Amino acid sequence: MNQDYIVPDEWSIIEEGFDKNRVKSSESLFSIGNGAMGQRANFEETYSGPTFQGSYIAGVYYPDKTRVGWWKNGYPEYFAKVLNAPNWIGIDISIDGEPLDLNTCTKVDNYRRELNMKEGWYQRSFEATMPNGIEVKAVVTRFLSLKYDEVGAIKYELEVLNKDVGVAAMPYLDSGIKNEDSNWDDQFWNTTNIVADGSRGFIEAHTMKTNFATCTFMMATAEAHNEQVKPSSPQKTDTKVSLTFDTALKKGGKLTVIKYGGYTVDRNHDKNKLIEAANEVLDKVSAIGFDGLLQTQKKAWADIWQMSDIAIKGDVKAQQGIRFNIFQLNQTYLGTDSRLNIGPKGFTGEKYGGSTYWDTEAYCIPFYMATKNQEVARRLLKYRYNHLEKAIENAQKLGFENGAALYPMVTMNGEECHNEWEITFEEIHRNGAIAFAIYNYFRFTGDYSYIPEMGLEVLIGIARFWHQRANFSEHKGQYVILGVTGPNEYENNVNNNWYTNYIAKWCIEYAIEQLEKVKEGYPDDYKRIIGKTHLTETETEKWKKVADNMYFPYSKEHGVYLQQDGFLDKELIPVSELPKSERPLNQKWSWDRILRSPYIKQADTLQGFYFFEDHFTKEELRKHFDFYEPFTVHESSLSPCVHSIQAAKLGRMDQAYQFYLRTSRLDLDDYNKEVEEGLHITSMAGTWMSIVEGFAGMRIIEDKLNFTPQLPEKWEAYSFKINFRNRILKVTVTKEGSSYELTGTEEMSIRVNGQRVVLKPGETIQA
Amino acid sequence: MNQDYIVPDEWSIIEEGFDKNRVKSSESLFSIGNGAMGQRANFEETYSGPTFQGSYIAGVYYPDKTRVGWWKNGYPEYFAKVLNAPNWIGIDISIDGEPLDLNTCTKVDNYRRELNMKEGWYQRSFEATMPNGIEVKAVVTRFLSLKYDEVGAIKYELEVLNKDVGVAAMPYLDSGIKNEDSNWDDQFWNTTNIVADGSRGFIEAHTMKTNFATCTFMMATAEAHNEQVKPSSPQKTDTKVSLTFDTALKKGGKLTVIKYGGYTVDRNHDKNKLIEAANEVLDKVSAIGFDGLLQTQKKAWADIWQMSDIAIKGDVKAQQGIRFNIFQLNQTYLGTDSRLNIGPKGFTGEKYGGSTYWDTEAYCIPFYMATKNQEVARRLLKYRYNHLEKAIENAQKLGFENGAALYPMVTMNGEECHNEWEITFEEIHRNGAIAFAIYNYFRFTGDYSYIPEMGLEVLIGIARFWHQRANFSEHKGQYVILGVTGPNEYENNVNNNWYTNYIAKWCIEYAIEQLEKVKEGYPDDYKRIIGKTHLTETETEKWKKVADNMYFPYSKEHGVYLQQDGFLDKELIPVSELPKSERPLNQKWSWDRILRSPYIKQADTLQGFYFFEDHFTKEELRKHFDFYEPFTVHESSLSPCVHSIQAAKLGRMDQAYQFYLRTSRLDLDDYNKEVEEGLHITSMAGTWMSIVEGFAGMRIIEDKLNFTPQLPEKWEAYSFKINFRNRILKVTVTKEGSSYELTGTEEMSIRVNGQRVVLKPGETIQA
Repeated sequence: MNQDYIVPDEWSIIEEGFDKNRVKSSESLFSIGNGAMGQRANFEETYSGPTFQGSYIAGVYYPDKTRVGWWKNGYPEYFAKVLNAPNWIGIDISIDGEPLDLNTCTKVDNYRRELNMKEGWYQRSFEATMPNGIEVKAVVTRFLSLKYDEVGAIKYELEVLNKDVGVAAMPYLDSGIKNEDSNWDDQFWNTTNIVADGSRGFIEAHTMKTNFATCTFMMATAEAHNEQVKPSSPQKTDTKVSLTFDTALKKGGKLTVIKYGGYTVDRNHDKNKLIEAANEVLDKVSAIGFDGLLQTQKKAWADIWQMSDIAIKGDVKAQQGIRFNIFQLNQTYLGTDSRLNIGPKGFTGEKYGGSTYWDTEAYCIPFYMATKNQEVARRLLKYRYNHLEKAIENAQKLGFENGAALYPMVTMNGEECHNEWEITFEEIHRNGAIAFAIYNYFRFTGDYSYIPEMGLEVLIGIARFWHQRANFSEHKGQYVILGVTGPNEYENNVNNNWYTNYIAKWCIEYAIEQLEKVKEGYPDDYKRIIGKTHLTETETEKWKKVADNMYFPYSKEHGVYLQQDGFLDKELIPVSELPKSERPLNQKWSWDRILRSPYIKQADTLQGFYFFEDHFTKEELRKHFDFYEPFTVHESSLSPCVHSIQAAKLGRMDQAYQFYLRTSRLDLDDYNKEVEEGLHITSMAGTWMSIVEGFAGMRIIEDKLNFTPQLPEKWEAYSFKINFRNRILKVTVTKEGSSYELTGTEEMSIRVNGQRVVLKPGETIQA
Repeated sequence: MNQDYIVPDEWSIIEEGFDKNRVKSSESLFSIGNGAMGQRANFEETYSGPTFQGSYIAGVYYPDKTRVGWWKNGYPEYFAKVLNAPNWIGIDISIDGEPLDLNTCTKVDNYRRELNMKEGWYQRSFEATMPNGIEVKAVVTRFLSLKYDEVGAIKYELEVLNKDVGVAAMPYLDSGIKNEDSNWDDQFWNTTNIVADGSRGFIEAHTMKTNFATCTFMMATAEAHNEQVKPSSPQKTDTKVSLTFDTALKKGGKLTVIKYGGYTVDRNHDKNKLIEAANEVLDKVSAIGFDGLLQTQKKAWADIWQMSDIAIKGDVKAQQGIRFNIFQLNQTYLGTDSRLNIGPKGFTGEKYGGSTYWDTEAYCIPFYMATKNQEVARRLLKYRYNHLEKAIENAQKLGFENGAALYPMVTMNGEECHNEWEITFEEIHRNGAIAFAIYNYFRFTGDYSYIPEMGLEVLIGIARFWHQRANFSEHKGQYVILGVTGPNEYENNVNNNWYTNYIAKWCIEYAIEQLEKVKEGYPDDYKRIIGKTHLTETETEKWKKVADNMYFPYSKEHGVYLQQDGFLDKELIPVSELPKSERPLNQKWSWDRILRSPYIKQADTLQGFYFFEDHFTKEELRKHFDFYEPFTVHESSLSPCVHSIQAAKLGRMDQAYQFYLRTSRLDLDDYNKEVEEGLHITSMAGTWMSIVEGFAGMRIIEDKLNFTPQLPEKWEAYSFKINFRNRILKVTVTKEGSSYELTGTEEMSIRVNGQRVVLKPGETIQA
């Protein structure tokens, strides 16, 4: 573990004491977001120490020119990345002419940050002695409104403790910002208009290349000694607009600045009326006022928690961890817009481009399906349907034809953004996850309509890809898939990755099955789809031949499927025998050494056993788990959760709990020593799965919820809610057993440890 | 074939007619060099059309910061690249105030370039009508002196044809130059001192980071109407110095400018006395004069040709091709300095960094050994001995220990410069070529002393590497080498590349053998080396175990060793069945598609059959050739020569000749459509091998030269000379048979078609 400065608390993330070395980590951990925008926990006032500035707007990205050593045919020309957006939070403070800057203060006491997850606000407070000897106390509260998602609010309360002074508070907007991960130091923003209007300011700027038009806006008011302070005439530069509240403050007196700010964007407004739209929302929120707005915030978060909370008794750190994960997921994506998706770092950093990965399908959809509703999950599926044509183009670039679709590894708008050949061209199993999510959605929601309406076309494109991507090996007399990278990215360009071959076969079979079902049940849709895709029976016969004759590497000696051809040629030394000094491998070993080692970054063969667990016996799972887990280094944030679920299934609750701890507090305790770059948002959904699917053993079998609840030894109890086909079920697991409480009007039968249990609304059933 | 504008000629490369689209290609083809410096055939006067400027100084490079998409542990921090050096050739011409610029001339007639390979000079002549209607005629002759290798000379003769005019000729130096392949647009040169002194000018500049100090110098004189013109006072800017010769020229009158220029560098002089050194060489050459200098040039080239020429009768294009190759090799490296080596593009372009590859050991050493002498070959071996410590450091970076050495893929000073993991970390067979060159050197020269003095230490480092790099596969019960890239770079990260495994085994065995020999014959050296390397018998026992139990992939069905594990799983469609539109694959296919195809970029398994041909029967060669060649796309310039030699050995002279044509005129006919970037210098040595080892079948067997001469049908005869252990043998092959002429004083026995032939000095023996 790297850090443990976060104070354990059931509902809040708390930091106490000022430590400059923690500033960037805390900027990530105390990030706030509302699905439409996000803000790292940067200070409002000047900070001259190391800091990583980050303000982000959902769906606003920049296609940065690809940077590679040697260009390879088929590389995308750009890497779309989330943009550091114009700064709206800034409030510079100057006292007797000297700027307040915690980096230069001679003393900082009672420094405290709190991210109140229950109510959705963030507060920072401190007492500091400035170089000029002036002692100040500040309490700064900030939130991004869930209800008015274009706006954030800040209350900056400043007291001067030891003398009478002159204070200037200068709220500002700044579009002269940069991305730290810029490839070529390009300008990302073009500022076109700066307006100052009384207590309000506006900067219109559009992104280069993508031309997203945005208006960054603010409105600020101030009170000193409970009397309003008027702003003096605003200042403008090429990329900045600021107001100044100048006032005298007596010793012990307080200055309070209220600032509203945020963004209006052309995804939601006419691009010529962004200032108008900004004025409207400012009129609205300023009428409600800071305190009123905070009330709506508390209410909105209460609604979210009402459905998505997991309560844990007896383990405050575990409780804090799971709530942090659920909170961050909801800060990132709320399911209201099918044009948006869930970036691996959400709105908390630049890395991974804020783009969409297969993480969404493999990890996030189950969380959103169960804690929101089927519409939200459907929106995430539709996101990929909307990108189908681009996926077909992407496959064409790589030489595939006839409507074969390869979904990108990383994308903003459907185009591939990634540019390492071993990933971009070879980590093609991602295509399988897109199909699996369709299956998973129907399995959970029972809503078949998505398949005839949209899903089937996606399934056809994917089946076509696998059919063309496999080739017949005369030598083996079977179909093989050569040159791939599996989920375990510590192997590149391998042949017959079992997981890839397995999901390829499954994708084809599932597509054929759905074609039959749609043909029978939705003849009009069928006709439309056949007309559009020109699919013939000859073609599906060919698909079938590939699926029926797929090769799977297998070791008789070990009784396991092999991760890939040749796996047994490696030096099979378990991770436990590696010196600690050589971990993490990705920081200590050269890439070739990692590649030829047996070490596994994240579940690979076991990912297949997770997705398709009903295809295998528990004994088979045990064998594979015991074979592969000892070689697994879990150096991906997506690794521990799958292993936790499987360990729980195998009744190894101690091991399951260890994996759970690692996933739930990955960022809070900074296991990977990189939290300052941002949080691992998508893997947070894995933490939720560890409890719900792992400890509670939730499965959908034959349209019914099933549970096999277990409790980690250290816990007294846990409980969570599931929205299953629009019925809300609360599950509580204690040392004594488990109980189930159904809301709504209809009864529902579930299975607990294989036994059928009939639940009536309002009744709590012990099982 | 892409182009055929080069006029066939036995001794010259000739271009006739001005075509702007050919300027960059011709700049490469007409490049001149003298081993110490090189110059693309850029125009002396201004040219505003597309051009690729290039002046290069041997051994002067810049470590450009590595550019990659995603950094991988173990990557080198920089890529050393040959530098575009300050321009010394420039002579701007202005007539009646208008600059002479062939790009703006309204008419260009009788444009001609000639690169006279026999005598080592380059001449460009033309008649042009300028936009102001003035008609001029120019003849410009240029060469880089072999004798005074810091200097080049230019004679610029200008006539005005249609009126009386005012002419200004402005010879200049310019250090404000850039590399086109710069990764980050860094400045590569820092100009520190500019001096103008009468008819001379000097620019002192040093390279950034590497701090190579250089002085670029010039001296110019001019005559008009046979009377000397005095230069007016010189002009200086931050990076430029120029002289001006202003004169009136009557219609039909001639202005002649003589310019000497070049570089003095701190590899050869005190860095504080570079201008002094420049003045000295200028004193020397100006005293000799342009014509005198040209005479020494003709003499020096005659000496080179005397030994290294291959004369072909009956095929002028083949003759031109082979002489072009021999000429360029000699322009690039003359064997006088063990700090220098042979870059794949020599002094003709920027690409591939002008650095050293395994090409030197695999292709160039045989040429230099046979056409120069053993000292030259030894200098090339010593280059690697000097880099042994860096090779050990390089291996350490990748996790190897105990003095294991991995020579870099690309280097300037012994450090690795390459940064694609599949090459840098995995194309480790290069280490084998370094060891093979030591064996090859001894086989050819009979000079064993290199091994105890230097070679054995290299062999130990390399053997240690292979021992550590192989691992025991419990599954196979043999040693395997996982995760490599073979010579065929169209496969990456494969397991058990046969060539790599084979050369690894050979390296270990050869090292052990030499250890024994040195122990017996050179006990003092042995003691020194053991003391230095701490080699024990326990360690060599371990090496032996690896060599004795190395695994080699083999197909019983086909009776061939497999290029790598899993090769037979590919779709084995021969190249002949690929549509032409899909070639070359590296421009038409995405990288993943190339990787999973069976197509071979250059000899891989067959490279092993070339190096170790005496380990295999001719029947085995035939089988492997027939199996692999049909999948070979020869998209590396290093591919055709090995195949040509093997086809000749198999008695397939038609095929051998086809391969020969492809290699010998690769650049002249621009097969790869990239000649404008520079010439393929190292593969030119392969062309020489195609004739000497291929057609003439030269081999060294048991300390004797062997020949099995054949003649391509189209040719009447060919002849070449070999310096075999300081005896010069001239071999002539005609339709009637072959003849052998020995110079010197001692007799020598050779074998021709297996028959022993005793040669007496001065006698020509028919065989």
